[in-house]
Amino acid sequence: MRLLLINPNISESVSALIADEARRSAAPGVEIEVLTAPFGVAYIETRFEALIGAYAAAQLAAEHHERFDAVVVAAFGDPGLAGLREALPVPVTGLTESALASAHLLGQRFSIIAISHRIQAWYREIVTAYGFDGRLASIRSLEQPLQRIGAVQEDHAPSLKALAERAVHDDGADVIILAGAPLAGLARSLQGQLAVPVVDGVSSAVRHAATLVALQAGKATRGSFAPPPAKPNRGLPPAISRLLDRGA
Amino acid sequence: MRLLLINPNISESVSALIADEARRSAAPGVEIEVLTAPFGVAYIETRFEALIGAYAAAQLAAEHHERFDAVVVAAFGDPGLAGLREALPVPVTGLTESALASAHLLGQRFSIIAISHRIQAWYREIVTAYGFDGRLASIRSLEQPLQRIGAVQEDHAPSLKALAERAVHDDGADVIILAGAPLAGLARSLQGQLAVPVVDGVSSAVRHAATLVALQAGKATRGSFAPPPAKPNRGLPPAISRLLDRGA
Amino acid sequence: MRLLLINPNISESVSALIADEARRSAAPGVEIEVLTAPFGVAYIETRFEALIGAYAAAQLAAEHHERFDAVVVAAFGDPGLAGLREALPVPVTGLTESALASAHLLGQRFSIIAISHRIQAWYREIVTAYGFDGRLASIRSLEQPLQRIGAVQEDHAPSLKALAERAVHDDGADVIILAGAPLAGLARSLQGQLAVPVVDGVSSAVRHAATLVALQAGKATRGSFAPPPAKPNRGLPPAISRLLDRGA
Amino acid sequence: MRLLLINPNISESVSALIADEARRSAAPGVEIEVLTAPFGVAYIETRFEALIGAYAAAQLAAEHHERFDAVVVAAFGDPGLAGLREALPVPVTGLTESALASAHLLGQRFSIIAISHRIQAWYREIVTAYGFDGRLASIRSLEQPLQRIGAVQEDHAPSLKALAERAVHDDGADVIILAGAPLAGLARSLQGQLAVPVVDGVSSAVRHAATLVALQAGKATRGSFAPPPAKPNRGLPPAISRLLDRGA
Amino acid sequence: MRLLLINPNISESVSALIADEARRSAAPGVEIEVLTAPFGVAYIETRFEALIGAYAAAQLAAEHHERFDAVVVAAFGDPGLAGLREALPVPVTGLTESALASAHLLGQRFSIIAISHRIQAWYREIVTAYGFDGRLASIRSLEQPLQRIGAVQEDHAPSLKALAERAVHDDGADVIILAGAPLAGLARSLQGQLAVPVVDGVSSAVRHAATLVALQAGKATRGSFAPPPAKPNRGLPPAISRLLDRGA
Amino acid sequence: MRLLLINPNISESVSALIADEARRSAAPGVEIEVLTAPFGVAYIETRFEALIGAYAAAQLAAEHHERFDAVVVAAFGDPGLAGLREALPVPVTGLTESALASAHLLGQRFSIIAISHRIQAWYREIVTAYGFDGRLASIRSLEQPLQRIGAVQEDHAPSLKALAERAVHDDGADVIILAGAPLAGLARSLQGQLAVPVVDGVSSAVRHAATLVALQAGKATRGSFAPPPAKPNRGLPPAISRLLDRGA
Repeated sequence: MRLLLINPNISESVSALIADEARRSAAPGVEIEVLTAPFGVAYIETRFEALIGAYAAAQLAAEHHERFDAVVVAAFGDPGLAGLREALPVPVTGLTESALASAHLLGQRFSIIAISHRIQAWYREIVTAYGFDGRLASIRSLEQPLQRIGAVQEDHAPSLKALAERAVHDDGADVIILAGAPLAGLARSLQGQLAVPVVDGVSSAVRHAATLVALQAGKATRGSFAPPPAKPNRGLPPAISRLLDRGA
Repeated sequence: MRLLLINPNISESVSALIADEARRSAAPGVEIEVLTAPFGVAYIETRFEALIGAYAAAQLAAEHHERFDAVVVAAFGDPGLAGLREALPVPVTGLTESALASAHLLGQRFSIIAISHRIQAWYREIVTAYGFDGRLASIRSLEQPLQRIGAVQEDHAPSLKALAERAVHDDGADVIILAGAPLAGLARSLQGQLAVPVVDGVSSAVRHAATLVALQAGKATRGSFAPPPAKPNRGLPPAISRLLDRGA
Repeated sequence: MRLLLINPNISESVSALIADEARRSAAPGVEIEVLTAPFGVAYIETRFEALIGAYAAAQLAAEHHERFDAVVVAAFGDPGLAGLREALPVPVTGLTESALASAHLLGQRFSIIAISHRIQAWYREIVTAYGFDGRLASIRSLEQPLQRIGAVQEDHAPSLKALAERAVHDDGADVIILAGAPLAGLARSLQGQLAVPVVDGVSSAVRHAATLVALQAGKATRGSFAPPPAKPNRGLPPAISRLLDRGA
Repeated sequence: MRLLLINPNISESVSALIADEARRSAAPGVEIEVLTAPFGVAYIETRFEALIGAYAAAQLAAEHHERFDAVVVAAFGDPGLAGLREALPVPVTGLTESALASAHLLGQRFSIIAISHRIQAWYREIVTAYGFDGRLASIRSLEQPLQRIGAVQEDHAPSLKALAERAVHDDGADVIILAGAPLAGLARSLQGQLAVPVVDGVSSAVRHAATLVALQAGKATRGSFAPPPAKPNRGLPPAISRLLDRGA
Repeated sequence: MRLLLINPNISESVSALIADEARRSAAPGVEIEVLTAPFGVAYIETRFEALIGAYAAAQLAAEHHERFDAVVVAAFGDPGLAGLREALPVPVTGLTESALASAHLLGQRFSIIAISHRIQAWYREIVTAYGFDGRLASIRSLEQPLQRIGAVQEDHAPSLKALAERAVHDDGADVIILAGAPLAGLARSLQGQLAVPVVDGVSSAVRHAATLVALQAGKATRGSFAPPPAKPNRGLPPAISRLLDRGA
Repeated sequence: MRLLLINPNISESVSALIADEARRSAAPGVEIEVLTAPFGVAYIETRFEALIGAYAAAQLAAEHHERFDAVVVAAFGDPGLAGLREALPVPVTGLTESALASAHLLGQRFSIIAISHRIQAWYREIVTAYGFDGRLASIRSLEQPLQRIGAVQEDHAPSLKALAERAVHDDGADVIILAGAPLAGLARSLQGQLAVPVVDGVSSAVRHAATLVALQAGKATRGSFAPPPAKPNRGLPPAISRLLDRGA
């Protein structure tokens, strides 16, 4: 089984974190490939940056999906995921969607620990769009500006752990989600140090993507996740245009 | 006052409908300019197409906003709106957001009349994202494939009117929203023919955009609609890159 | 265009604040008239006082609406608004409804800054009735008893500004609504001093009422905002009785 | 124990129905008095009529409550109830609130059977304001215009029963609420004829009001149901003015 | 009238508190019997303990209900209530359901004061299952481990009162619910000491159960509270098996 | 890896269906054992039957969990799941929870196809308790009484497929969940015959349980899924008593 993870940001250092955790998490026989967006920003905190990342993810997915059994949008917030689920013939998931699935299977209410204050509003909207707002105990975040996006864990691990502890104690979290690709692998290194289950987006996505491949539930040919209906298009990257032209 | 309306689709015929209704709706002294996406699809019905339209809208807005007092994303569904509200220094609205504001001021529950079955799921998600799902009486739509996107009104006016009547009678709609730029102007031509107020996205957006300019409520410099924080970016169209580089 | 603003309270000093801000906000050619309730209380903080104000507003509206193109219930909380929308042949809005429309067009989540602790519960119920509770970041209020209802701004401007700042920082507000007719004009004088857009009920209502007149969306003749069905009535002020007798 | 039931409408025939069912429902030793509004409409179907009924109820309650242990607003929709709960020193309930309490104690989801199509929107808003919308299976109603408001049961009993049956079968209702004072007593006469528990507003209100008296839970002196804060008032009926003047 | 109160826990000391408050609360002529679970835990704080208590309550109810007019599950959280409502031919209620009915009749928002931190999550889920989450102002609880479950009131009355005061002041509670059978009677002894109405589960349940008997609303023979459909069963206590065998 | 699936009902024929589908679904190296409840009913349709099944599941889980890496409650509706998640040291999931996780990863809105009309209310409450009600497009069910619970698929496959098709077309389902252990394996045999992804509870649970084992997210030692606090218990089956005695 071959999984494509798309980092919709330009940070190669984050792609390396994603690849490391993805390979540690994958079952034997699951091959992992991580691609980095050729355009965009260092990391997404806002709706405007997510709009850019979604388009970058769509381009990479359109170009490369044919060699893979499933695709993962490897940024918390899942930019472009719902659109790609329509357009691609293979299963697609994202870090947030997958982390929520894991949290759902581990407890009732969860908190998200995030890397920046600004990112909270966008995360909240994504959680709400998935219908999980009733189970969201809180979002807590680092408040300092990030110096090195590829080294957030090293620079801030104690703060992140403290935020998780407050979420359990003060907010009633049954599960902690460590959010954002830059935190890939932190759940693993905190194992046994927190009083509740800890969820990581990358390992969740790798495992759940493999499950989707195994379940063979089928690709929608009707309903809102069928491919977009065929219609005129213009000026698009060839791979996206090809996806659209094979539309339902 | 100068308003920029961005059609995030490639259909010039729809841009013409938008421009006509916008000019009919604008108060004296309000100048209207409509731009058509240089890339994309004929009209947006799906999340994947919306992702493309959002990026096209962002590019046009980044390039042209400086000459305008406010910007309107002129497709129902508002692709890119929330991101542009962060990034642009001027007020931004969209057809859905503006139609909902009008409906909110005219009654309690509303129905949306749409041009295709497939488009319903995407519309429903947008209405929910704005928090208006509790006031949504129903979405009803044409079921036949559209032959001429610029001539939907001519081809289907009686069907659209019948759908509106059923929404009032069967679904309890207090207000009807005729949704989608291809229906721009239909509310005007149905005036007096329906038993409840009828709302059009384009005229609503033109009026509400002008109100936002007049109210001078201020651009966010903090909170989730402040400009995206400055950070490295790469490979972006120059106008988008410029917007990002002036970030908070 | 002629707009009638009804202060459903007996405070002439507040009516003066309303009139001043309404006139500053109105587009050229829009005439403003403000009427003060002949009976009632100094300002509404409770459901019981709102019930009285609603009846006073209904009486004034019934008597005077014929000379106007639209009517505004000029108290935050909109006492009587939904009923008047049924009964009157012209558009009606209120300070809360209009402020919410503005906030909706300016951001996702908003906070309300109020003039008394007691008033919060009533405001919360109104916001919920409009379906905006999912977008309400917080309500914050002055805690001291008000000495002079017509001079709240002078007496408490710094406190009100501080409350707004905390709403942005601690509660995640994208927009601030300064609530209550006694604060009419404060948004204008705080312009540029807050980090997010600031909304005022009176200016919003004046602008949105004019938009409703311009859009000519039509008066409901069916559905829940049609005039009340004709039926026996007794003992009512003649103007209210006349409104009822012309019922659907 | 003495209970005051206030019919906020002018229909003496409906007051008689209310009084009959109230007396049949009351425990031994509970005395019932029913007062009819001196002004208003024949029966309330709309928000505007409710606004009038609320004021009429407030006036009657203010004048007469001192001789009673509890007060019931005896119209489905409970016009004025929340305000009176603030202002009166004794427990107050209403037909809707009481019927919902009974339904809550008898099942999970309920349907409301109403006497007119128009009344449905107002009922829905009231149910939502009480937070019971998640448990509302449906509202179904008679569609014909009512000839004799005091004889709805005689004229329409089979239709009302058929509506209840459809609510159980098609809408999943666990409990049926027969709504509106004109249906007072119908639940009693349908006893044993429906497949689920049937709730009547008047008998529920009489029993629950007596429970409130017995529980002696106390009158709020703080919070949102404390009496309105003392402040200037003018032009009000003396009894209302007296209530306000003794405010917190 | 004879009411059966089932303590689904093994604590005789708590059964005594329940019996005392039930008898003080009952109208003349209402006989009270309290049964204690023959198996289970000292008091329920968790979902797992509730699962055990539900089965114990079911067994006691199946064995003894025939001598009674109504049954009360006498633990806050109502373990087994919804199932028993299906299976028993008489009305059934529980402490939470009844306390919520009282709170609903006394104000809009309520807080729950609980005896342990751990119990909060379970209470929150029950309140949500009843659809009252929108009216829940807060849950506050003792934080110290309980030494003597039958003497919580003596040991902690001042702390419990202080929690109630904070719920009113900080959380906006209109009503206080003192939750848990170990607090039976505390509301009575705090009468007049709190600024808002105080509700007790046992007295509420006794009064509401009597109301259900009096209203004679009928037992469901269809819908989701009809008896479980007849089907094979095996290995059950004889009384439960008898209940199932008489199924619809 | 060893998984224990507990059929909380007494039907050996359904246990056989569960075991077959579980073994077909499991990854290589995952061993499956299915246990059947020693007491209870043939299949659960009601809350009362679920209460019994929960206790039976708890007993089996308490006795046997020590030999397994994870436990699955193998009835749609997940009787006892939340309690077992507290009490057991290994991951626990259920058919509904797992099917919802799969549906969440495959689309936005889903419909449940159920085996009996009566079962719908219980399913709806479970879906709501998990917070997925906003994504539930519909529940549709067979209406005929079931003759042979172990042969529902053979007897009703065409009807079940037709229900699924209506859910996609009329209700807007993006995903179909075939609900209930008696339908285990049907999704597999319908593969490619429906226009949207089809989800089966058993295969989902087997895959997700294995994921939970692989992720090693940790067992809660605090929060609402920690083991129940130690306290006196009496009269319980020894295995349950042992679980409780090792409490937190």
